[in-house]
Amino acid sequence: MIVTPWRVSGKIDYDRLIKEFGTQPLTEDLLKRIERHAGELHLQLRRRLFFSHRGLDWILDMYEAGRRFVLYTGRGPSGPVHIGHLVPWIFTKYLQDAFDAKLYFQMTDDEKFLVNPDFTLDKTRRLAYDNALDVIAVGFDAKKTKIIMDVEDADIIYRIAIRVAKKITFSTIKAVFGLNESSNIGIIFFPAVQAVPCFIESELTGENVPCLIPAAIDQDPYWRVTRDVAPKLGYLKPAQIHCKFLPGLGKGGKMSASLPETCIFTTDSPEDVDRKVWNAFTGGRPTVKEQRMHGGDPTICPIYYYDYYLFEDDDRKIKEIYMRCRSGDLLCGEHKTMLSEKIKKFLKEHQKRREKAKDLLDEFLFKNR
Amino acid sequence: MIVTPWRVSGKIDYDRLIKEFGTQPLTEDLLKRIERHAGELHLQLRRRLFFSHRGLDWILDMYEAGRRFVLYTGRGPSGPVHIGHLVPWIFTKYLQDAFDAKLYFQMTDDEKFLVNPDFTLDKTRRLAYDNALDVIAVGFDAKKTKIIMDVEDADIIYRIAIRVAKKITFSTIKAVFGLNESSNIGIIFFPAVQAVPCFIESELTGENVPCLIPAAIDQDPYWRVTRDVAPKLGYLKPAQIHCKFLPGLGKGGKMSASLPETCIFTTDSPEDVDRKVWNAFTGGRPTVKEQRMHGGDPTICPIYYYDYYLFEDDDRKIKEIYMRCRSGDLLCGEHKTMLSEKIKKFLKEHQKRREKAKDLLDEFLFKNR
Repeated sequence: MIVTPWRVSGKIDYDRLIKEFGTQPLTEDLLKRIERHAGELHLQLRRRLFFSHRGLDWILDMYEAGRRFVLYTGRGPSGPVHIGHLVPWIFTKYLQDAFDAKLYFQMTDDEKFLVNPDFTLDKTRRLAYDNALDVIAVGFDAKKTKIIMDVEDADIIYRIAIRVAKKITFSTIKAVFGLNESSNIGIIFFPAVQAVPCFIESELTGENVPCLIPAAIDQDPYWRVTRDVAPKLGYLKPAQIHCKFLPGLGKGGKMSASLPETCIFTTDSPEDVDRKVWNAFTGGRPTVKEQRMHGGDPTICPIYYYDYYLFEDDDRKIKEIYMRCRSGDLLCGEHKTMLSEKIKKFLKEHQKRREKAKDLLDEFLFKNR
Repeated sequence: MIVTPWRVSGKIDYDRLIKEFGTQPLTEDLLKRIERHAGELHLQLRRRLFFSHRGLDWILDMYEAGRRFVLYTGRGPSGPVHIGHLVPWIFTKYLQDAFDAKLYFQMTDDEKFLVNPDFTLDKTRRLAYDNALDVIAVGFDAKKTKIIMDVEDADIIYRIAIRVAKKITFSTIKAVFGLNESSNIGIIFFPAVQAVPCFIESELTGENVPCLIPAAIDQDPYWRVTRDVAPKLGYLKPAQIHCKFLPGLGKGGKMSASLPETCIFTTDSPEDVDRKVWNAFTGGRPTVKEQRMHGGDPTICPIYYYDYYLFEDDDRKIKEIYMRCRSGDLLCGEHKTMLSEKIKKFLKEHQKRREKAKDLLDEFLFKNR
């Protein structure tokens, strides 16, 4: 199992990650507190796609005492957006609505330029603008959401980043991110840049505003370092809520744009969806006869996971799908067809909003604040 | 002998520096070529305060073939400006006039913030603006001079700096600058920032413009790294012309603001000048009698150096001063009084221009380009 901001591979043991990273599991008590404020629990909480946190209890204490907080999440624009990327963004929108919170969304075009030998700044800039359309299409509130483009917003980013950078040594970066002496000095500096949105609201308003970061667990090393630095700069430590990875349509591993047939891009056509889902790995048996006799295994099945974590919100229905699969009643072909229809319906709506997002983009950009 | 961008100490052997740094000595032939274009040779060339270079012959070839070049020098704003700082700036103005060249002047407020544990960004910003008045007072052409403030101009700086940074590993920074694992990641990134003004004219105009950097030899490590990187980014290698350090008024070492009584600040009063010069170390003998008998030693005397490198432009007169000192005819007290008068006259004019500079500042700032 390897989980770093730049690489995730092997079979992920999430309980072990909580221990190794030193985070806290999401408890029933915490879920109840969120439910109280949000009215209902998001399926990603009910089904523990979000499973771990740092300081969520503390930020809820603050909120319940009348303090507002900001949300921060982001995207490294290295290619087109797939539905695995949407997972934490959809959840972030839920939090924005539930807590009436401002969101800073960071596009780390600088990072993607620095880690990919072949990428130009032009390319990462174009990708950042393209990916921003998907962010907007998720439905964030334009009045409460600012998209930061690292390179274009360097005027603000740099002056905060060097204050953070002054408190971080190379030893720390080496230990936390596994960088080494052959790493370029841009990517060595970058963790300071990724820390900036945690503090930007405080910096711009003069008020010390807490920050909650919903993001996949692989980004946790950044927040470990940021939490160490925050008090040294007079800021509050940012809190996190961590999600698991949505598996790819292939066998094992997270959805990865580098294996395009294993992931559903937000701009895929209905034919793409049908083909990719049809060719997906499943928890099924080699033959219909065996499936009918022994049943399938939803716990290793991406088709099931997509329903479970994204597309089947109804708890009774998802339980029924599980049982029918286990019993051999539901064949993989039928389940694939059901899922394909749900994905196509979802994408049709997303693509409409994505098209409209082109007109909304200016309003969302941090530089136009 | 220690010569790095952050520390200069011991007795400096400039011939050894040329060998160790791998630079070229300034030859008679090069001086003649400069003289042809400039009309006359600046005293800092005639007397070899500027003594070494990289690629000066090449940049003169380009110039003689009809290509323009830009000048680049700078200042780390860590305190008030003293006349040691003015030395390369005065020379840079001579080059600007001689070659009708645009100048980028970089204020590295970020660097000074990053290397001084107690400095805030507010402090380095205030110093940068204060020091800029001295830059302007040197007499640069407002139409051809842009002062870059690293932090305020980060919008342009950062996007070029990360392109440079992508080509520099931590190993290189460690070997060239003596940084280590305890260094903060901001100062590790900084050499990429200091490289930017070499390329900024090319970046802004789309034309590939060569760059000549007049600066003290301790800054050479930056240019060694920058020259390696330049061709990888499609830029021309920057050329350099290196000067020695103006000694302080104390015994040995360069003028250093951390020993305020050994240096003449540009805002010093006539009384300050009299006192500091009067208390200066000299190459004189312990008693008048011995001085009259054996003569003094101008080769170790800061009073003589100030005349030689800055205040006595007349070659005949400086020779006369040398001979009179050597012979015991010129006593230290008399020489100090002569020098004090020259410095006070110089500062009176500089301070007038410095006052006027407050109105000119906006025109000089890169951000107002």
